[in-house]
Amino acid sequence: MDIINCINQVSIDCVIFGYENHQLKVLISKSRFKGDFYSLPSGFIFQNEDIEDAAQRVVRERTGIENIYLKHFNVFGKVGRKRQEFLDKLIALNYVNQEEEYQNSDRYKWFINRFISIGYYSLVDINSVIPQTSELDESIGWYNIHDVPELIMDYNQVLQDAYHCLKSDINELSNIYNLLPEQFTMKEIQDIYETILEKTFIRTNFQKKILELDVLERLEKKFTGAKNKAPYLYRVKK
Amino acid sequence: MDIINCINQVSIDCVIFGYENHQLKVLISKSRFKGDFYSLPSGFIFQNEDIEDAAQRVVRERTGIENIYLKHFNVFGKVGRKRQEFLDKLIALNYVNQEEEYQNSDRYKWFINRFISIGYYSLVDINSVIPQTSELDESIGWYNIHDVPELIMDYNQVLQDAYHCLKSDINELSNIYNLLPEQFTMKEIQDIYETILEKTFIRTNFQKKILELDVLERLEKKFTGAKNKAPYLYRVKK
Repeated sequence: MDIINCINQVSIDCVIFGYENHQLKVLISKSRFKGDFYSLPSGFIFQNEDIEDAAQRVVRERTGIENIYLKHFNVFGKVGRKRQEFLDKLIALNYVNQEEEYQNSDRYKWFINRFISIGYYSLVDINSVIPQTSELDESIGWYNIHDVPELIMDYNQVLQDAYHCLKSDINELSNIYNLLPEQFTMKEIQDIYETILEKTFIRTNFQKKILELDVLERLEKKFTGAKNKAPYLYRVKK
Repeated sequence: MDIINCINQVSIDCVIFGYENHQLKVLISKSRFKGDFYSLPSGFIFQNEDIEDAAQRVVRERTGIENIYLKHFNVFGKVGRKRQEFLDKLIALNYVNQEEEYQNSDRYKWFINRFISIGYYSLVDINSVIPQTSELDESIGWYNIHDVPELIMDYNQVLQDAYHCLKSDINELSNIYNLLPEQFTMKEIQDIYETILEKTFIRTNFQKKILELDVLERLEKKFTGAKNKAPYLYRVKK
């Protein structure tokens, strides 16, 4: 990525949420440098790129999927927000051979300058994602929202802020269905709501409330061969 | 203002809301240059300034008041967002004498570069504000939200977006009271809700709902000498 053709001092940070087995998960990368640097997916904005397109690109590069549901939730812009600690570590580990070499280069400014982050959260169907490492990553993977390692910069706070916004948005938006495959049962939706909000709902009341939103289309029943009554499948109306 | 010490290509745009006589109003400035340029209050972010402090400063400079309620509501960052049209007009009007003089100056880049705007909306007690012009303004004043002139850039869209967010926020936040003086009657709150949401509420139901939020403290009655029953005054709990 040619960072010279990007907007200075601004980055896009993405909190990518997935859901699996009663757990809300987030995609987190681990740097290939020693020192256990964990990070959120992040990237810069090209001069010839809308910021929403930049956010789509950052998420696409890490998930392999297109047309992702994204929502801007906050900006982070304290004076002290820098990648300096990361550069210091690289110099200490001799990954950057000559500090002086960087002092006068354009690349260096990406580390020593203060950075404003534009935060987006994304909701994806976890089974359709194949997490992709960047050139700086050793690995990338899903972590339970309640079991996230210490992240670089202020990313733990960014993450909690995104989670808080997701909780606030859940009752007014129909976008939560982006966490599921195209067809799903009412129980699967209820599991997601209960997991995100960390509380339980009465089944009949929950179903009534969801159907009142009038965004779902009922399909055929899902027969699994189990003895209990087969549940209906739903999908979001076109 | 020394624009050289600001973050490049990023500005703060503020939609300042006030309420008066059943009207939701916004603060809009008119440029001192010919051509009827109307604008939202806007400013840059100093390198040594948190972005929230920059937003507070921009609103303070235009309203004269401190510790203003501000909420970040969106970012605006399409590739084509530039102040170029404004510069073109200044050159055409000979306010900028030498286009070439600007081509190589740092000041010029503020006009020809693409700009990302960080949008905040603000709620103020309109009677405590004395609108202040900037060095570029001929005048500044309050406009009814439904009667705003054509603004420069994409500011009409920014304004509508802020209004949409204010409507969404009204029922979950207790911040709406920032539009009122310290003490107010229930009828004044109801007027504000009805004006912003453009619908009417039944008085008793409205009062019940507001009091259930448990953010208000009831004070003495407000005697005005009128024949009807004196209403109670309220203020937000400390």
